[in-house]
Amino acid sequence: MRFSISLLVRCAVLVLVGLGMVSAVAAADRDKLLSEPGVYGTFAAFSLDAGWAKQDQVVRIAQLTVLKGVVEQHREKLAIDVYLLRGLSDHADVLFRMHATELRDTQQFLLDLQGSLFGQHLTDSTVFSGLTKKANYVPGMPDNLKAELKIPSEPGLMPYVIVIPIRKDADWWSLPQEQRAAMMQEHTEAALPYSKTIKRKLYHATGLGDLDFITYFETSRLDDFQSLILGLEKVKEFRHNRRFGHPTLLGTVTSLDEIIEVLAQ
Amino acid sequence: MRFSISLLVRCAVLVLVGLGMVSAVAAADRDKLLSEPGVYGTFAAFSLDAGWAKQDQVVRIAQLTVLKGVVEQHREKLAIDVYLLRGLSDHADVLFRMHATELRDTQQFLLDLQGSLFGQHLTDSTVFSGLTKKANYVPGMPDNLKAELKIPSEPGLMPYVIVIPIRKDADWWSLPQEQRAAMMQEHTEAALPYSKTIKRKLYHATGLGDLDFITYFETSRLDDFQSLILGLEKVKEFRHNRRFGHPTLLGTVTSLDEIIEVLAQ
Amino acid sequence: MRFSISLLVRCAVLVLVGLGMVSAVAAADRDKLLSEPGVYGTFAAFSLDAGWAKQDQVVRIAQLTVLKGVVEQHREKLAIDVYLLRGLSDHADVLFRMHATELRDTQQFLLDLQGSLFGQHLTDSTVFSGLTKKANYVPGMPDNLKAELKIPSEPGLMPYVIVIPIRKDADWWSLPQEQRAAMMQEHTEAALPYSKTIKRKLYHATGLGDLDFITYFETSRLDDFQSLILGLEKVKEFRHNRRFGHPTLLGTVTSLDEIIEVLAQ
Amino acid sequence: MRFSISLLVRCAVLVLVGLGMVSAVAAADRDKLLSEPGVYGTFAAFSLDAGWAKQDQVVRIAQLTVLKGVVEQHREKLAIDVYLLRGLSDHADVLFRMHATELRDTQQFLLDLQGSLFGQHLTDSTVFSGLTKKANYVPGMPDNLKAELKIPSEPGLMPYVIVIPIRKDADWWSLPQEQRAAMMQEHTEAALPYSKTIKRKLYHATGLGDLDFITYFETSRLDDFQSLILGLEKVKEFRHNRRFGHPTLLGTVTSLDEIIEVLAQ
Amino acid sequence: MRFSISLLVRCAVLVLVGLGMVSAVAAADRDKLLSEPGVYGTFAAFSLDAGWAKQDQVVRIAQLTVLKGVVEQHREKLAIDVYLLRGLSDHADVLFRMHATELRDTQQFLLDLQGSLFGQHLTDSTVFSGLTKKANYVPGMPDNLKAELKIPSEPGLMPYVIVIPIRKDADWWSLPQEQRAAMMQEHTEAALPYSKTIKRKLYHATGLGDLDFITYFETSRLDDFQSLILGLEKVKEFRHNRRFGHPTLLGTVTSLDEIIEVLAQ
Repeated sequence: MRFSISLLVRCAVLVLVGLGMVSAVAAADRDKLLSEPGVYGTFAAFSLDAGWAKQDQVVRIAQLTVLKGVVEQHREKLAIDVYLLRGLSDHADVLFRMHATELRDTQQFLLDLQGSLFGQHLTDSTVFSGLTKKANYVPGMPDNLKAELKIPSEPGLMPYVIVIPIRKDADWWSLPQEQRAAMMQEHTEAALPYSKTIKRKLYHATGLGDLDFITYFETSRLDDFQSLILGLEKVKEFRHNRRFGHPTLLGTVTSLDEIIEVLAQ
Repeated sequence: MRFSISLLVRCAVLVLVGLGMVSAVAAADRDKLLSEPGVYGTFAAFSLDAGWAKQDQVVRIAQLTVLKGVVEQHREKLAIDVYLLRGLSDHADVLFRMHATELRDTQQFLLDLQGSLFGQHLTDSTVFSGLTKKANYVPGMPDNLKAELKIPSEPGLMPYVIVIPIRKDADWWSLPQEQRAAMMQEHTEAALPYSKTIKRKLYHATGLGDLDFITYFETSRLDDFQSLILGLEKVKEFRHNRRFGHPTLLGTVTSLDEIIEVLAQ
Repeated sequence: MRFSISLLVRCAVLVLVGLGMVSAVAAADRDKLLSEPGVYGTFAAFSLDAGWAKQDQVVRIAQLTVLKGVVEQHREKLAIDVYLLRGLSDHADVLFRMHATELRDTQQFLLDLQGSLFGQHLTDSTVFSGLTKKANYVPGMPDNLKAELKIPSEPGLMPYVIVIPIRKDADWWSLPQEQRAAMMQEHTEAALPYSKTIKRKLYHATGLGDLDFITYFETSRLDDFQSLILGLEKVKEFRHNRRFGHPTLLGTVTSLDEIIEVLAQ
Repeated sequence: MRFSISLLVRCAVLVLVGLGMVSAVAAADRDKLLSEPGVYGTFAAFSLDAGWAKQDQVVRIAQLTVLKGVVEQHREKLAIDVYLLRGLSDHADVLFRMHATELRDTQQFLLDLQGSLFGQHLTDSTVFSGLTKKANYVPGMPDNLKAELKIPSEPGLMPYVIVIPIRKDADWWSLPQEQRAAMMQEHTEAALPYSKTIKRKLYHATGLGDLDFITYFETSRLDDFQSLILGLEKVKEFRHNRRFGHPTLLGTVTSLDEIIEVLAQ
Repeated sequence: MRFSISLLVRCAVLVLVGLGMVSAVAAADRDKLLSEPGVYGTFAAFSLDAGWAKQDQVVRIAQLTVLKGVVEQHREKLAIDVYLLRGLSDHADVLFRMHATELRDTQQFLLDLQGSLFGQHLTDSTVFSGLTKKANYVPGMPDNLKAELKIPSEPGLMPYVIVIPIRKDADWWSLPQEQRAAMMQEHTEAALPYSKTIKRKLYHATGLGDLDFITYFETSRLDDFQSLILGLEKVKEFRHNRRFGHPTLLGTVTSLDEIIEVLAQ
């Protein structure tokens, strides 16, 4: 429990944060990976096995140091984010999001992660990948809508993360482009009121797994997020979702160091 | 078994109840969390692993003392209720219900719980959250109906708890508000005869997981509850439930101390 | 294997049967519980874990003695039946059927059972409950049908048990009562030819889990039972079963002492 | 691996085959069980647990000797066939098919099997049973078709076995007999070209589990078998299969001694 | 992790590659198996159990040497390919593809594989098989289309592999041949633009399991592959897929030696 963090952990964390400093060099690359089209985003969720917590704290800290090392080692090629799901999702305990220009680099990271002493405690992995693309339908939308879409979301920390996998039905893909465009404009207008308090990112997953889209959200206002989804459920396009969630991943945005502190306790 | 409770348990329970006293300070807060809108309710169901019962009773009591401590520690921010499912549901053995104004606080509690020596025996967790809101459709209902809805349910202990997760179909959300309102009035009228013997509480779950609603019931009359559900299954609105239950959680309302006594045996 | 029963088991069985005698007092109550409306019937199926058979026979016999004790202890409030599923169902190895006027009493029995040294080997529990009621539709049926329904099934042992959980579709419940009554008369007429060789019992499960009905059958003629179900599948009412079986539990009717003998080997 | 069979195994196998001789007496009975109506056929598929292969070869051979003993012991009442699924089905490693006039006898065999030292390594059991009956629809078919149906399949070993469980939809059973007969004639004509190279056997499963039929096939020509199924998928009757396979079991026909040799390695 | 490969592994890999040389003799056969109709292709995916990584590296290398031996031993009759799924699919860690003229030979290989010391760490196996055939619909297609289909895909390594299992709906098979041919021509035209960058291979699975087709792809351009699938989802034929993927297997094409190096680390 919180109050039980030993001095040992504190030291360990200092050391780990120290390691963190080293990798600052790769920061620039990260911005491109997170903003540009043609980037592969992979979500890997894991549960911790029963053995993890049974280990002595010193052992766990040693293994978390390895985790830190594996992440740092791949930071040059990958943008790696971590999230804490335990307590808010029953699907998994931790979530990694990787961005890379080649999925092989992501695979190499996950091989190293799962092969590490820490990774041996990761079970029930769920992995799905998607590709970032230029907006499909926005070009055809009215200018005022385009303009509003350009307004950035509020700055500052957004503590909650939600990931919703989506699969469209067969009808959707057989619809003519203009019909899909019209539905997507309706979808976009319904989402617009929440663009300030909710960050969104879209990944195209068709063919890379059993999904068509991965929708990623960050927010500090879960009530707003609920209103957003209720709004999206009312538009025609929603009826073409054969799968929406299952699972919906809900968690909190954390740093690698914060996760390490939680897992060390 | 019942008759096998050792003096040791009795003492332990006394000690634990003692601890219970301490936390009385937080009581006031609890009423607001359980009655007001804008509160997040989280249901976390767990099974006990095979190792739990194999442990020596003294060890189990020590771990239950930790459980008690973790719960007390979070009582300031959270309203925490516990229920015993084993024997009435195959889905899980125990159920925790947490009410909080921020889901992060609930996550912190579950992190501490699952990280504790007791929590290491909790498996197959099922977690879903919802948000309490002002009644959506009641404002438009006739005054006599509104009046009847204000009549409180009978006072006194209601020993049984039922939790039914609900997901509406895509048609439901695309219906105009007045049509949904009309159906909900029919739904409400069907439920009214049971408002005395059955306590209800509704949580809006859309976007926080794969549910739209979490319905919570307490009753001492399971036959009345069966009649209530049969009544609700007859109204049009029911046909818009894509999912109703799966699982339906049935258990008994208990205090933390009662659960501890059961688990200590 | 059969032939390998040691004298030890024989003695143990004698002792257990001895215990059995003691509980004869509660017998009267049992008849009421099995015949009257307003009684809760609970079906709890369990598999034996891999550890069970690996134990020394002496240990298993000691644990089975505890099982016997737990059952006897609850016989005053509960009517408890046991069935052997292993070999005929893959769903579970043993099935307990409990009848009680309060589900809390059934829960207390299952808590004691699962908490016992024997119960620690019970896994993958499946539990569902239903309520016995006066016949819904019979009152409106023609007198000759009512008369035929009164004819009791053949006396004597019926070695096979079948339990089929049923969930009706949303259409069923929204049908007017008279339409459902007409369909149920057709259903009843189809079932009538088999009333002599097949004992039936019906439980209303709506709201107590994810079922609407639990149908219970005993027979010595599985070929007749197959013809019965084929007959029922042909009537209109069958088309309103969203779920029929899944699982269908097939096993043999045994006494507690017989099960103990089987498990002791 | 093949080449690693020790002399020990060879000897053990000789001994086991020796045991095999003893049971020749029961052979006659077997033919009736496999050909006559009113016989219960049970399919029990099992996986071997992780512990099996980790055991010393001597221990495995000792346990396989027990397996042989259990099978021989029940040969008087049961016709028992074994199949090797591992490598061709992911569902299970071995399949037992039992024919008996009473399912209780089959249950007793499976109880003895699962209770044996060998059986303790059998997991994830899948069990389903069916009843052999006189052909339902053939009597109404034209004489030339009847005649062709009488032509026996080619003699000699058919190395491959396929078992496909089937569940019909609610429409099927509510169709008038003559309509079903017409569809079954179309079905039969589609199957006829393959009667020489593919042996078929049908079991009626309604009410004994969640299936309506179990179809059993033996062939040395899997390409012919594929053509047969493609032919059957084209006829109207196929559209009334709510479930077809799931799982489809594919394996090889083996003798008990061959399986023992494989498992001993 | 990569950087931690000990000299020991390097040596071991040299030895293993050495073994590889020996089996060059069988190479010719392989081309026929991979190109001709009437060949059975089997896909077997496995996860590595938790015990694998916990073993000492020397032990793992010894077991991987056995793996190499088992594969070489079967190379005469089988064409065996291996793929690395871990990190890109959550379904399994490694995938084996076997081509054989008789499924029994494939079964024998998998029996030897799973029976080996290495194979004892393989769990959650998924196995499905299909038969290669002459193109069904191409003969009826216009000559220019036939010509384009003959153009080989670009030479050189295609690092990514995708395997998508497909099941058609009942309507598909009951459609007249010419209608299916027309839809398949539309399907083929949609796929044509990607024939250069994406290698395809088709297996007919009907009757050999619960699939109708297994589609196999190799590419170095996952973005092209995504466009291909999006194109195929737009044509009428796609609406007759009852199942498409579930799972979709995504991984990387590797040599046995590369996999051994990864698993040895």
